[in-house]
Amino acid sequence: MTTQPNDDFVWPVRVYYEDTDSAGVVYYASYLRFLERARTEWLRSLGFEQDVLRERHNVLFAVSRLTIEYLRPARFNDMLTVGVRMQRRGPVSLTLAQTVRRDPDALLCRSEVRIACVAADTLRPCAMPAFVVSELKRDH
Amino acid sequence: MTTQPNDDFVWPVRVYYEDTDSAGVVYYASYLRFLERARTEWLRSLGFEQDVLRERHNVLFAVSRLTIEYLRPARFNDMLTVGVRMQRRGPVSLTLAQTVRRDPDALLCRSEVRIACVAADTLRPCAMPAFVVSELKRDH
Amino acid sequence: MTTQPNDDFVWPVRVYYEDTDSAGVVYYASYLRFLERARTEWLRSLGFEQDVLRERHNVLFAVSRLTIEYLRPARFNDMLTVGVRMQRRGPVSLTLAQTVRRDPDALLCRSEVRIACVAADTLRPCAMPAFVVSELKRDH
Amino acid sequence: MTTQPNDDFVWPVRVYYEDTDSAGVVYYASYLRFLERARTEWLRSLGFEQDVLRERHNVLFAVSRLTIEYLRPARFNDMLTVGVRMQRRGPVSLTLAQTVRRDPDALLCRSEVRIACVAADTLRPCAMPAFVVSELKRDH
Repeated sequence: MTTQPNDDFVWPVRVYYEDTDSAGVVYYASYLRFLERARTEWLRSLGFEQDVLRERHNVLFAVSRLTIEYLRPARFNDMLTVGVRMQRRGPVSLTLAQTVRRDPDALLCRSEVRIACVAADTLRPCAMPAFVVSELKRDH
Repeated sequence: MTTQPNDDFVWPVRVYYEDTDSAGVVYYASYLRFLERARTEWLRSLGFEQDVLRERHNVLFAVSRLTIEYLRPARFNDMLTVGVRMQRRGPVSLTLAQTVRRDPDALLCRSEVRIACVAADTLRPCAMPAFVVSELKRDH
Repeated sequence: MTTQPNDDFVWPVRVYYEDTDSAGVVYYASYLRFLERARTEWLRSLGFEQDVLRERHNVLFAVSRLTIEYLRPARFNDMLTVGVRMQRRGPVSLTLAQTVRRDPDALLCRSEVRIACVAADTLRPCAMPAFVVSELKRDH
Repeated sequence: MTTQPNDDFVWPVRVYYEDTDSAGVVYYASYLRFLERARTEWLRSLGFEQDVLRERHNVLFAVSRLTIEYLRPARFNDMLTVGVRMQRRGPVSLTLAQTVRRDPDALLCRSEVRIACVAADTLRPCAMPAFVVSELKRDH
């Protein structure tokens, strides 16, 4: 698995029966599950465990906007890689470019995902904790 | 949709792409989602809203044991009916017989589901609230 | 359930446990399942059964592009309505505006979904069958 | 990750938001997805790719019966291991004992899963291909 030149992080995903539908391909909503697994692991790689963020810091990351293009279908048993690249960083939200590829070079999906920081109890937008901001700056 | 002679409640379910897999049939875990929709609607028909039970009475119903036989496959676009019949009623748990049928007579799945009453905060087994017990007695 | 002034079709969706996540709200990919149920029922209301389209006419409708904004969260037990409105009609694809509302007036999601007609065997884009085009024209 | 004394195979599973529900724990049907991932990887470890079995040999493995006990809940971010152990081997079906554990020692689910070999085109039970039987014998 190789990082694409402009990915900050990649995560492998195997396609199981659960991910497919009777058209013989991966169901369109399943890609959103794959994108989220990669975001969760990207955050973990930066030192952020989302259960800790929620319990100790009362913050969640919630998707507020998503655009996805489905270019080629994936199928049962395919080995995919999901890429994460930070595009924009604001005080309350991040915008990520995410891709789904089948090794080695087939681009299956291209997406842009805006993640908002929200208070875990009220689900209202809030500023990202300072230690998150500084880590994201360091990384990017 | 007709109630089978020994069903207490039936609930219709349409099969969508989300429920199927690339073998061309309904994915085996999807039936558990169908069984739960029918249990939720059966409880609602008895006057129990699970969000109210949780918030005001601190109880959840959690599946503690399940046996399911897959007899015939369902497919995309099938119109199914899910049956609920109470088999046994204890102080802490209920055992339900549930079926999935395709109209009119094809039995697709047969299952037995034990539901335990648990405290919403600790997830430990607890006695069912008295008003739930008396309503379940009245119904059965 | 009332049709919004500019919806061509609306479909009710009840939120079950299967649709939620441990943040206490509906999981972001679940809305795509809701959007697709409404599209399936909208096509059915126009006389198109997708299993028939696939088997007799070798065509599938596949989502090729999706944008969705998540404005407010839905929760367990919520009763939602999903709207479908045709925005653009081309020879190979349709663009739909879809919404998810909680009765009566809360707009939860707003989305634009491009659906491409593809050959069921090759999954390559193809022209929509003439009888589909003429029905869609009649309806819109 | 250590193989339990009586497991033939174990597979790690991370819990993501997609797997949980608003009761704060893993949704009961999600465990069936985990069990199937482990079976798929166990078959792969024996040299059987299910897409190849289907395309070249016209066979699928389909779950025909499942019993599962839910002993303790799993939560978001938990790292689980799913075990597979062959219990019985017949000419048409296998019975597997499967477990879900949270490292190191907490047993969360215990299940028995009967897998039937079916013809991929008709979905009717059929004898397992000879090379599958002999590999399963060798392994067990």
